[in-house]
Amino acid sequence: MSGPVRSCSTECADDGDDASGTGRATYDARMADMTETTPGWLAPNELEQMRARMPILYVDAVPVRVDDSGEVTHIGLLLRIGPEGTVSRTLVSGRVQHHERVRDALLRHLEKDLGPMALPRIPASLQPFTVAEYFPTLGITPYHDPRQHAVSLAYVVPVAGDCRPRQDALDLVWFTPQEASSPQLQEEMPGGQGVLLKQALAHAGCLS
Amino acid sequence: MSGPVRSCSTECADDGDDASGTGRATYDARMADMTETTPGWLAPNELEQMRARMPILYVDAVPVRVDDSGEVTHIGLLLRIGPEGTVSRTLVSGRVQHHERVRDALLRHLEKDLGPMALPRIPASLQPFTVAEYFPTLGITPYHDPRQHAVSLAYVVPVAGDCRPRQDALDLVWFTPQEASSPQLQEEMPGGQGVLLKQALAHAGCLS
Amino acid sequence: MSGPVRSCSTECADDGDDASGTGRATYDARMADMTETTPGWLAPNELEQMRARMPILYVDAVPVRVDDSGEVTHIGLLLRIGPEGTVSRTLVSGRVQHHERVRDALLRHLEKDLGPMALPRIPASLQPFTVAEYFPTLGITPYHDPRQHAVSLAYVVPVAGDCRPRQDALDLVWFTPQEASSPQLQEEMPGGQGVLLKQALAHAGCLS
Amino acid sequence: MSGPVRSCSTECADDGDDASGTGRATYDARMADMTETTPGWLAPNELEQMRARMPILYVDAVPVRVDDSGEVTHIGLLLRIGPEGTVSRTLVSGRVQHHERVRDALLRHLEKDLGPMALPRIPASLQPFTVAEYFPTLGITPYHDPRQHAVSLAYVVPVAGDCRPRQDALDLVWFTPQEASSPQLQEEMPGGQGVLLKQALAHAGCLS
Repeated sequence: MSGPVRSCSTECADDGDDASGTGRATYDARMADMTETTPGWLAPNELEQMRARMPILYVDAVPVRVDDSGEVTHIGLLLRIGPEGTVSRTLVSGRVQHHERVRDALLRHLEKDLGPMALPRIPASLQPFTVAEYFPTLGITPYHDPRQHAVSLAYVVPVAGDCRPRQDALDLVWFTPQEASSPQLQEEMPGGQGVLLKQALAHAGCLS
Repeated sequence: MSGPVRSCSTECADDGDDASGTGRATYDARMADMTETTPGWLAPNELEQMRARMPILYVDAVPVRVDDSGEVTHIGLLLRIGPEGTVSRTLVSGRVQHHERVRDALLRHLEKDLGPMALPRIPASLQPFTVAEYFPTLGITPYHDPRQHAVSLAYVVPVAGDCRPRQDALDLVWFTPQEASSPQLQEEMPGGQGVLLKQALAHAGCLS
Repeated sequence: MSGPVRSCSTECADDGDDASGTGRATYDARMADMTETTPGWLAPNELEQMRARMPILYVDAVPVRVDDSGEVTHIGLLLRIGPEGTVSRTLVSGRVQHHERVRDALLRHLEKDLGPMALPRIPASLQPFTVAEYFPTLGITPYHDPRQHAVSLAYVVPVAGDCRPRQDALDLVWFTPQEASSPQLQEEMPGGQGVLLKQALAHAGCLS
Repeated sequence: MSGPVRSCSTECADDGDDASGTGRATYDARMADMTETTPGWLAPNELEQMRARMPILYVDAVPVRVDDSGEVTHIGLLLRIGPEGTVSRTLVSGRVQHHERVRDALLRHLEKDLGPMALPRIPASLQPFTVAEYFPTLGITPYHDPRQHAVSLAYVVPVAGDCRPRQDALDLVWFTPQEASSPQLQEEMPGGQGVLLKQALAHAGCLS
């Protein structure tokens, strides 16, 4: 790909490509390192084409801190600042690539968003706590992605290590389950991810 | 299969398009009624193209009979006769289309394979009992699909009504859980669907 | 409740014995038909003794109406009027008896609370959507039962038939998922069953 | 407790009290350290009495080793030698005590059987992969416990640390998923725990 890349929908090996479509502003910086020839990636126009024709498979991970008994003590949410300074908080989310296992996609997106020292504990079972269907049309499900029909397998993933989100306008903030259930925080989560977070809390038995 | 087969891998709204790729012989008969211009469907070359670039989202349904207490008494498997007379047995399986909910895809494929009077009881929760990853390469997971990388959400679906599989070389046979676990029947299930069936039996508490 | 109450905590084959302990006022009417010698039941003092020494196994069922695609359209809650006229709403709940299967306990309690024509569809899998731990001490979990330490397997159970709750001060009211999530209704559910209901809604993908 | 303890059904804070009842031979050695007055425990005759009247709540844990992507590589089974030298292999299993959370019971039994350095990763969600109903009568379910009606919540638990089973005739042996599915090993697992193990393997996607 030659010349300046401004395209919000560039593939970029899914970096920042969360299912609710809020991470677009961070794409450009990453593009410098990438080439179109990396196997398994899609050229921008190819992805666009497929998004219009098929549901796209995603994973959503809810990063949590747990105590020795496995109980969730904190939930980690990525902080992003939009073009107009709006705050949004998102889960770890991204596309599953061709010939990539779901657990490898989970690991890849967690490493990408939380850094290489996060030590995520990918679940032993692939049974997700739910399947989130992001439609480009509002109101069909609680989830919405204007770019595409994305179907996301959602997992609660304990992370034991040191989380260092990438520098480009991202931060990771830890919330208690009670804080994570609050209406205020819910409003900062776009595309229905607030609902998905509540489902994760319910699954982990810490929804209040 | 006699005569010229123009489009063995034709989309056909996924009819017979089970995830393990064994229902191809039945495509032709169905093609007569279809046009490639139906919205939401893919032209043959489009589907081919996408299969080479992205994981394709599927659903697998294990049709079961249950008693009043919900216990599985029988499992329904589709019978297919291959080109050389080989018997294969498959689950109800098919692709999720663009802008189609997973539960609607389940309903559509169950109706297509079991007939309009089967009265399937689609689960209230979308949480699948497992996620089956069919790879075009053997040995990565227990599941295999030479055509594509398909990721399938798998559900046990009680059917209460009268099942009449479509006429084209298909039949539906009911087995007890014990029969369904037998090595002989397992061998008749291609693409790892025997393993998926055992996972369903395990989930329903009737694996022996 | 007027007059001498001989056995408020009488076993009564668990009738009205919901896990949050709010159905006690309805025990007396039922006692007329029962004897303490029915096999499998416990004499009042025996149950009291065990409640002080062991966790007691319960089931909680969330009765729902679903459409053809399995999506939850309504949730049924039992209405109870307390001694001072306070309204409380509860799930279908009760103890698992000695030598009784969990699915038979589910069926028994659903029939008892919703009548013989409710046609509940007991799940094919015993995997509950959560395990609710009711402690006699407040604050350990979201669930509370002053009488005992009860551990309850919780299921969403579609009911297809005609629901006629028993006459003794009970009614069954159907709510939309949105109504069921409302703070007002949550406040009417004692013992943490409001949280359990939200977990059920989250599991079924209809928590708002 | 003074004098020689021969009673197989002694409470002993559940040590060795696996749901299938095969660990009895190891009770005696442990009794030396215990007193009947420890809060939360039951005197032998009390437990006997309750076992005849109520289902007893258990947990079953399947200890596994996982790789970085969460995939199960090995399953740990406890080795026990019966009175006549018969080999039996069991899961980590034990009773939930009064006023004890399920996750604390899991932790306690895993520490007891695998030692204090096993570092078990108790699941964030209490949703078990199945509920195993051990009946004193054969043939009602695949699980059997001659002593009692036990209902067990079953979990797959990754253990990251060093496992040192207690010395009294126990050992812990790690098997590959394929070995764990073998008929030979299945035969060495009493009380239906072989079936439960297969359900765990199915849940983790490694049943062959």
